[in-house]
Amino acid sequence: MIRYQPPIADLAFALEHVVGYPDIASFPGFEHADLDTVVDLIGQCGDFMAEVVAPTNHSGDVESAHRQPDGSVVTPAGFAEAYRHYVEAGWGSVPLPEEFGGGGFPRTVGLIIQELMTSANMAFALCPLLTQGAIEALLHYGDAGQKRRYLPKMVSGEWTGTMNLTEPQAGSDVGALTTRAVPQPDGSFAITGQKMFITFGDHDMAEQIVHLVLARTPGAPAGTKGISCFIVPKFLVNDDESLGERNSVHTVSLEHKMGIHGAPTCVLSYEEATGYLIGEENLGMRIMFVMMNSARLSVGMQGLAVGERAYQQSLAYAQERRQGLAIGATGADSAIIEFPDVRRMLLTQRASLAALQYLMLLDASYVDRSTHDPNPAARARANEIVGILTPICKSFGSDLGNELTSLALQIHGGMGYIEETGVAQHMRDVRIAAIYEGTNGIQAADLVGRKLGVRGGASVMEFLATMREIGTELAEAGTEFDTIREELDRQFDALEQATQWMLSTGRADPNSVLAGSTPYLRMWGLCTSGWLLARAAVSAPATGDARREESQLVLARFYAEQLLPQCAGLLGAATAGSRDLFALDADQLSGATSRVRH
Amino acid sequence: MIRYQPPIADLAFALEHVVGYPDIASFPGFEHADLDTVVDLIGQCGDFMAEVVAPTNHSGDVESAHRQPDGSVVTPAGFAEAYRHYVEAGWGSVPLPEEFGGGGFPRTVGLIIQELMTSANMAFALCPLLTQGAIEALLHYGDAGQKRRYLPKMVSGEWTGTMNLTEPQAGSDVGALTTRAVPQPDGSFAITGQKMFITFGDHDMAEQIVHLVLARTPGAPAGTKGISCFIVPKFLVNDDESLGERNSVHTVSLEHKMGIHGAPTCVLSYEEATGYLIGEENLGMRIMFVMMNSARLSVGMQGLAVGERAYQQSLAYAQERRQGLAIGATGADSAIIEFPDVRRMLLTQRASLAALQYLMLLDASYVDRSTHDPNPAARARANEIVGILTPICKSFGSDLGNELTSLALQIHGGMGYIEETGVAQHMRDVRIAAIYEGTNGIQAADLVGRKLGVRGGASVMEFLATMREIGTELAEAGTEFDTIREELDRQFDALEQATQWMLSTGRADPNSVLAGSTPYLRMWGLCTSGWLLARAAVSAPATGDARREESQLVLARFYAEQLLPQCAGLLGAATAGSRDLFALDADQLSGATSRVRH
Repeated sequence: MIRYQPPIADLAFALEHVVGYPDIASFPGFEHADLDTVVDLIGQCGDFMAEVVAPTNHSGDVESAHRQPDGSVVTPAGFAEAYRHYVEAGWGSVPLPEEFGGGGFPRTVGLIIQELMTSANMAFALCPLLTQGAIEALLHYGDAGQKRRYLPKMVSGEWTGTMNLTEPQAGSDVGALTTRAVPQPDGSFAITGQKMFITFGDHDMAEQIVHLVLARTPGAPAGTKGISCFIVPKFLVNDDESLGERNSVHTVSLEHKMGIHGAPTCVLSYEEATGYLIGEENLGMRIMFVMMNSARLSVGMQGLAVGERAYQQSLAYAQERRQGLAIGATGADSAIIEFPDVRRMLLTQRASLAALQYLMLLDASYVDRSTHDPNPAARARANEIVGILTPICKSFGSDLGNELTSLALQIHGGMGYIEETGVAQHMRDVRIAAIYEGTNGIQAADLVGRKLGVRGGASVMEFLATMREIGTELAEAGTEFDTIREELDRQFDALEQATQWMLSTGRADPNSVLAGSTPYLRMWGLCTSGWLLARAAVSAPATGDARREESQLVLARFYAEQLLPQCAGLLGAATAGSRDLFALDADQLSGATSRVRH
Repeated sequence: MIRYQPPIADLAFALEHVVGYPDIASFPGFEHADLDTVVDLIGQCGDFMAEVVAPTNHSGDVESAHRQPDGSVVTPAGFAEAYRHYVEAGWGSVPLPEEFGGGGFPRTVGLIIQELMTSANMAFALCPLLTQGAIEALLHYGDAGQKRRYLPKMVSGEWTGTMNLTEPQAGSDVGALTTRAVPQPDGSFAITGQKMFITFGDHDMAEQIVHLVLARTPGAPAGTKGISCFIVPKFLVNDDESLGERNSVHTVSLEHKMGIHGAPTCVLSYEEATGYLIGEENLGMRIMFVMMNSARLSVGMQGLAVGERAYQQSLAYAQERRQGLAIGATGADSAIIEFPDVRRMLLTQRASLAALQYLMLLDASYVDRSTHDPNPAARARANEIVGILTPICKSFGSDLGNELTSLALQIHGGMGYIEETGVAQHMRDVRIAAIYEGTNGIQAADLVGRKLGVRGGASVMEFLATMREIGTELAEAGTEFDTIREELDRQFDALEQATQWMLSTGRADPNSVLAGSTPYLRMWGLCTSGWLLARAAVSAPATGDARREESQLVLARFYAEQLLPQCAGLLGAATAGSRDLFALDADQLSGATSRVRH
């Protein structure tokens, strides 16, 4: 396996020339986070992740986290030590408020840190990722005492956090959860129930784990309206802030998963565990969405980050492996990078990863705009755009994570299928991203069900109009941008047509809108990708770097001419309605049970 | 995990109404293989595979084949017993010549038996699959003594076979192999070298293994022209046909693979092992292609077979798992099959699997036509069509195998990622199919490099014209077939345009043809799928089964309207040429090494 190389040059370019990071750094509160500082910072972060975290990736997959006879959970060799270094270096605190010991940097920078860490070791990176979700929930809804008690050590990383949503009968339907929370005389609650799929629900990397747990208080309304959110620390915290007795939460078992073996995925049992209500009763769903929205962007980023790691490995292999003679080659065997079909797989990865990088950073930058732009109207609009982009980032990012890691494996030929090569791990690891934090189907439903209707469709149409402005820039940039402009125009037409169909079908036939939601979301992913690659191409001359200029033009043109046209190919599926999807009964759907002719 | 249900009803329909099996059964030599007999036979075969083989699938994945301290290889519990029953029942011999103890049934029937076995347990099924490849090589090129000695026990399955091609430096480039074969005074050869990726290279399911090994004789020409093929039995065979001393071939190690854990993938070391030349010296590549061509169709079939097994599991789960309320539902939670996006995933699987089923059987039926049609011109044409269809079956089948098993996993939500659920295994198992027996990139190169040029392009244009004949049938079938006809027409246009481009670019710019080969092959996969589903839809009324008629119409229409349009979306990629693929150097392809702005 080759050494992980953090793509700092590409990140610096994206920040400055594609997603307008200098705007973000100009907002009050971010003065210290100017571009130069940030590029230095992520450079150091990249080095740290490559040197300290990346070496634990393959060994962690082979060893797996495991549960000891006494019920405690142990992470693979090297994880605890790498985590200690991570806490010492303070990487987790960079994007968090200075009030609680954080660096006060934008979320955009925090996302890059997560990305570099995820490329280094996705399983490992899940622990800080979940912790950040819990921190954000506490920042938004915790009371002063809770913040004072929990946040400083969670921000530093000394304590980690979890999200406890899922129960066996309550997955996508969170409202079906049954964990009970009974008020106690001292103001705390006794939490009883079983939670599953709890990532880093127990481990040996930190002295304390702060579980955020969704549960129902007595008499709460049914469904999602009756859910409250509780802090349930692994160890009770004494008044002097020292750790006290063990709370009644225990690991029943760990799941055996297809990937992310290094991350313990726990079934946790709460037996009258002591919990503390966050905010008020029945606010649970709102609090969960604070965690979720942050996590959804991060999960989309996982597709990018693991895809990048796999891509680097396949690029190195394609240069090193020699097989046969390429067209026009003479003498010794050619490296397989000289074969057109291998080039196609490499360029598909490269262009798609660049597009995902821009997409993720753009979404993060709008998160920062939504919180820090001094102009209230701009903040409100940024919030709308985050609403549109987040389901696209999550689904398109994780779907491409699957597709691109599979391409990286394919380039390795038979060696790709051998676990020691390490590329199969990336494909297995990233497969979860399309599922957790709301399946990709749920994201598509969110896009068409919640986000399209904002301001009667005006929000989304305005965003489309913004994307179309690239046409003028491309026309001015020169004739070599012509095919990019023409293809984008054609595909924006298709996306606009699908959007109009969705908006007009909307309330009258919600099943048809949902029926087309997944292909429709992918149309968005393709169009935003083509748009951002084009934006990067027209911005590249400003770098004064001729090779960068050439690269960005080639990536944008390759994407526009060769990948983007899939968008129009999805229009039929997006707008076909639900008739054929529901035309067959379960018996007809089975090839086995249909009547044999005899 | 649910019980595997062999799709006999669908197979019977496909044989009779889609691929014209009654024609095959009418050829001299196949009189005993009439449709009724065959449907009975595959019904029994399906029961056998479901009852005897399928139960070993998940346990075999968990246990894996392993190498014992003495160097021998042991398959997972249950494999050897299931194989014994398989040999007793005689399933392997059904499509093989009666002269050597076979049933003399068409290859089409043999493919169905392989499919049912592969759905039951892909890893297990690889052993008979490889054996069949070795049998076909011996049938074509072995001398009378070799046939008499080896074939009866290989046909019965008492002995198994392997294909030994790959060496560390010789994968896709077979010509780079260096294993030596030195003539001995007794007419045999001493074989020395190391072979890797040898599926079932050693195991405990049969008393004897017949290795077919590619090697070079002294003074042989370089590259593929100097390769010969040898029989190297695990045990030498005495003159009385009893097994004699152990030959000098040993298992150095087993690979740890992403999937097909039950199948031992061996590194084999030959140290002056006794081998017997098949045919003449330097005929090795021709003999290999006999094994390969048969195996390529079988590997495409693996995508279908494993996809079918995964689909059945996801269909059952979608009916059983309840989460939230579907649109218009009241009362208790809805089964997730009531949600449109889940329906989309199910119908995508169902329609794609039906199309693959027809495609594989069509190819197999042309294999039978190429060998048994009494009309020599028809045999020759069938052989051309096999040449066109085989790379499509192999690549499109295995690519869809990956995509469809991933959809099946996705329907399971978080449970899909847990290994105990069993669906992740299907995704891991089938991943190899896009790689072995010639990577899918090699298949695409074969299609554009060898098959398109047959008769100056006339062969392929005639096949396209045959497909277009469906238009008339659809027009006559009624207005509910209109959108199918229109969409097929549009997509055939795109395929024809791409084909013309390939033919005219051809010799002048082979790199550009290769550059577009993979998307071009996929256009073929989509069009042949849409065409065969349409053929099934127009044929279904002949069954007199209204529910079958309805199902086939819905599947054909869903495919035509919602999946097939991806074909035109690939035209740009198929015909873009190689410029952009080769525009960036390795440094520009890396986001890490490009210059940072500082």
